[in-house]
Amino acid sequence: MALMQLTIIPMGTGSPSVGDYVADVQKALEKEGASFKLADMGTIVEGEPAALLTLAARLHELPFGRGLQRVVTQISLDDRRDKQVGLGDKTASVRRRLG
Amino acid sequence: MALMQLTIIPMGTGSPSVGDYVADVQKALEKEGASFKLADMGTIVEGEPAALLTLAARLHELPFGRGLQRVVTQISLDDRRDKQVGLGDKTASVRRRLG
Amino acid sequence: MALMQLTIIPMGTGSPSVGDYVADVQKALEKEGASFKLADMGTIVEGEPAALLTLAARLHELPFGRGLQRVVTQISLDDRRDKQVGLGDKTASVRRRLG
Amino acid sequence: MALMQLTIIPMGTGSPSVGDYVADVQKALEKEGASFKLADMGTIVEGEPAALLTLAARLHELPFGRGLQRVVTQISLDDRRDKQVGLGDKTASVRRRLG
Repeated sequence: MALMQLTIIPMGTGSPSVGDYVADVQKALEKEGASFKLADMGTIVEGEPAALLTLAARLHELPFGRGLQRVVTQISLDDRRDKQVGLGDKTASVRRRLG
Repeated sequence: MALMQLTIIPMGTGSPSVGDYVADVQKALEKEGASFKLADMGTIVEGEPAALLTLAARLHELPFGRGLQRVVTQISLDDRRDKQVGLGDKTASVRRRLG
Repeated sequence: MALMQLTIIPMGTGSPSVGDYVADVQKALEKEGASFKLADMGTIVEGEPAALLTLAARLHELPFGRGLQRVVTQISLDDRRDKQVGLGDKTASVRRRLG
Repeated sequence: MALMQLTIIPMGTGSPSVGDYVADVQKALEKEGASFKLADMGTIVEGEPAALLTLAARLHELPFGRGLQRVVTQISLDDRRDKQVGLGDKTASVRRRLG
């Protein structure tokens, strides 16, 4: 299992706010039944790596549906195979170290 | 005020685990009295942009202190000047849109 | 058409060098017949967005084949639909502005 | 010496094109006498890590000077201390491996 951070950046919107675009992504992830968490600088989704990237390709299309001509989508995929690491596991492990 | 996501990647450690390096960063941020939050894919810190990047330069040195020869530090700085946006504000704004 | 920057980071290798892993990616891209360019901080590939992410999923598997247990793959997908933008087009456009 | 990839994303511009903002960054880097290269997905600069991040803080201000209210600046700093790695060195090393 891997964790993917996804940040979809709508370009040329005419406004500094991007909340509507982020809300579209959250609604789509709920509809898909994905295991995810909205964080301050992106959305974190857990799953198998190939499935996560296929999902990212679908979500990347969403801002074009609102009439935009350019979208920059950024993905960081952290995939560890010696043990299962899901949402919240890495932060819990660091907190244990900090006592 | 800006939000900075900081991900410090220790290279060539010999182990898939990086928790000790992440814990070093958390301890240093607490000592500095920074306003920050540990997230699944990085640490989010709030502050003025120039001060955040100076802080990032100090934190980037930490893994070298454990004997490493290569560190990749990744920073995303989101700086909005038409209104104050701190930790948790962006996620709250999206949640309001979702009702 | 979109441009994808792909950076595959092998974790826990025991050495600061990652050149062998990068070479694996280049060989695989040549075999695929992809249109790509090796740059200082990642590999840039041009193509359709969904196909690029499927390709990224295959390339992400390569370091596991060398025995690693953790791989962090980072992707930035820049997709502009009001005009065709391929490898080298954006840098040429900026150079024209600089005279 | 380290390599920094810098991508300055102007938000809310009203147009999909960002070439004017990228040209501002190139002009400022030339004025500073920095050692840099414009690449397809960002600008690569070489130098000492703390100096690079201070430089990034100055460049991050440029789009605000054109009236924008939000800028997202992304930095990847690759710092290797067992040998000197400058612009072009990593790509040359991979090409040697590929014969």
